[in-house]
Amino acid sequence: MDRGRLEAFSDGVFAVAITLLALNLVVEGPGHGSLLGQLVDRWPAFAAYLVSFFTIGIIWVNHHTLMQNVAAVDRTLLFLNLVLLLFVVLIPFATNTMALYLTSGDQDAHVSMALYAAVLTAMGASFAAMFAWMLGEGRTVRPMPREARRAAWLRFTPGTIAYLVAIAVAFVSAPASLAIVGLVAVYYIFERTPRV
Amino acid sequence: MDRGRLEAFSDGVFAVAITLLALNLVVEGPGHGSLLGQLVDRWPAFAAYLVSFFTIGIIWVNHHTLMQNVAAVDRTLLFLNLVLLLFVVLIPFATNTMALYLTSGDQDAHVSMALYAAVLTAMGASFAAMFAWMLGEGRTVRPMPREARRAAWLRFTPGTIAYLVAIAVAFVSAPASLAIVGLVAVYYIFERTPRV
Amino acid sequence: MDRGRLEAFSDGVFAVAITLLALNLVVEGPGHGSLLGQLVDRWPAFAAYLVSFFTIGIIWVNHHTLMQNVAAVDRTLLFLNLVLLLFVVLIPFATNTMALYLTSGDQDAHVSMALYAAVLTAMGASFAAMFAWMLGEGRTVRPMPREARRAAWLRFTPGTIAYLVAIAVAFVSAPASLAIVGLVAVYYIFERTPRV
Amino acid sequence: MDRGRLEAFSDGVFAVAITLLALNLVVEGPGHGSLLGQLVDRWPAFAAYLVSFFTIGIIWVNHHTLMQNVAAVDRTLLFLNLVLLLFVVLIPFATNTMALYLTSGDQDAHVSMALYAAVLTAMGASFAAMFAWMLGEGRTVRPMPREARRAAWLRFTPGTIAYLVAIAVAFVSAPASLAIVGLVAVYYIFERTPRV
Repeated sequence: MDRGRLEAFSDGVFAVAITLLALNLVVEGPGHGSLLGQLVDRWPAFAAYLVSFFTIGIIWVNHHTLMQNVAAVDRTLLFLNLVLLLFVVLIPFATNTMALYLTSGDQDAHVSMALYAAVLTAMGASFAAMFAWMLGEGRTVRPMPREARRAAWLRFTPGTIAYLVAIAVAFVSAPASLAIVGLVAVYYIFERTPRV
Repeated sequence: MDRGRLEAFSDGVFAVAITLLALNLVVEGPGHGSLLGQLVDRWPAFAAYLVSFFTIGIIWVNHHTLMQNVAAVDRTLLFLNLVLLLFVVLIPFATNTMALYLTSGDQDAHVSMALYAAVLTAMGASFAAMFAWMLGEGRTVRPMPREARRAAWLRFTPGTIAYLVAIAVAFVSAPASLAIVGLVAVYYIFERTPRV
Repeated sequence: MDRGRLEAFSDGVFAVAITLLALNLVVEGPGHGSLLGQLVDRWPAFAAYLVSFFTIGIIWVNHHTLMQNVAAVDRTLLFLNLVLLLFVVLIPFATNTMALYLTSGDQDAHVSMALYAAVLTAMGASFAAMFAWMLGEGRTVRPMPREARRAAWLRFTPGTIAYLVAIAVAFVSAPASLAIVGLVAVYYIFERTPRV
Repeated sequence: MDRGRLEAFSDGVFAVAITLLALNLVVEGPGHGSLLGQLVDRWPAFAAYLVSFFTIGIIWVNHHTLMQNVAAVDRTLLFLNLVLLLFVVLIPFATNTMALYLTSGDQDAHVSMALYAAVLTAMGASFAAMFAWMLGEGRTVRPMPREARRAAWLRFTPGTIAYLVAIAVAFVSAPASLAIVGLVAVYYIFERTPRV
């Protein structure tokens, strides 16, 4: 399988998943209270959209950076890539569930936020598995110097740890957990570690 | 990141967003009044579909024209592009909300139309930010002569100003505001300023 | 604008529209009558899916054949292409509406089928407009000999006439009109006119 | 038609279909029982998502492998490819229906699972038809040695037989039938027959 078609298919899935996020944004028609009131009540849906949009956007950028270094696609990478996409496609569902329950004020707020952070953790772990595969002998276009590998791990690790922390924090405060996930996105947007 | 994959991903998002517009077109099945009556009652949904379809189509054309001039994609452009797509993906939601309330005859008609025009304004501003980035030293394939820059700004400015005017007009008359947004689309379809 | 990106965007829209057709296929969960009974009752949705799927598939093939001959994309072609896509994106909505009312047994069956055939007629007319544009001086990669132009018109015309006939027949018998649209798809699948 | 655009369109359809699978995952908002309870009750939707996701992923990989060997796309292949996509696009619908009824405990559980397995069988048969077409004189980039053809048939046959068996088993036990379909996916992920 050539890299080009794997990227094209993955790009398609990323593009559809990121656009489906907006299907979670809905208001009832006239007769269900003032529109402004509805929009304010649904702030969790908008906050969740914002965080998930940039999170998927960043995975897409990282996916591209990784693929650019890959010398040849084998069956293992194909499978790891499918696992990554499996979790990417779950993000709109997890986002919607979390937004529905974020302000429910009971146990379900914690459960829904933990589920959301768990999907992101699984997505991050799948990406780390793809990266670990790439470190094998002869899998990159050019040999990766040791410092480059180290720098790359240093880039991933904070995000994955933060997602794990977000799962734990979800059981204390769902909004605080969402803030952590949002900060991860901000971190990766501005992060300047020289990359592979 | 090479330009090709940024374009492929953006094209995917544009294509999905423009197609999702049609999900806002629905009629109830038999037993909810005559079909013709339903279609006539829902004229705002069809008008909104038409305006948003051409608006997204035009952004897509402009996006392509801009990207053709870009020498290399850096992290800043990636981020600005994500912000643009964030607002493009919001268009189907804003279109649906506006169509639902356009003929409600109360304050919500104004609010929903202002929200729609605000999303388009934000989208236009994101595009202007991408263009401003491109004017930086060495970012275009060929140096852009001064007149070309001026001509390009002259092309954007009327649309952005018109969107701002549409926000204000929304509070007076929602349909008039929608007409302004529609005229912007017509303007850009026929506009013949020589382009960059 | 290069041809490649216009094709990529159009392919995306065709692919999303053809896949969204399946969103019209739904059954109620347990407690709404036997599943087999539901599936049989909904035969119009399945028949409509089949006809619309192949209709969009054939437009896509024709779109590709036309684009292969285009020497350069100008603003007029871009706009005509957007108009074509506007009607392609309406097909899932028109399909759903027709399937909902096909067996309603009243005037709405006729109206919904006429609407469906009208959307296909408009789509066919947009395609004919793209083809007419292409016949202008210097717009094809190689000059098109007169017989090739004639053969191409001979290929389009039966389909467009049949769609117009389907609008008229819809007011007599909606299922007969759907059968005509289905036969157009079958005709184009097996049609062997030598092509441009 | 060049192979590239056929692949691009097919990739688009595969990408949208695989992502739409997640639209079947929904929970009710607050006030419909505990979230954990809802998630546990809906285990069939999650199991079905997992199986269908990898099934579509594997078809996509096989589709790519086949297309790489194709020397030129003709009208017959285009049509066979559309038939394959027709069934791929039905998978989200068949998945949803099966998940809705899997635990209904009556005849409909059997019917819905048989429908799901039948859609996969039809999809497998369409793919086999594309492969049989490819075996015709001069249709592959390089002539395929006899052993390669044999090896390829040996790869397809177990899956297709297993899908047929799954239809029959569906009438005895729906979950057992789903397990068979899941095992087919696992088999193809790990299967190591040297390929064409």
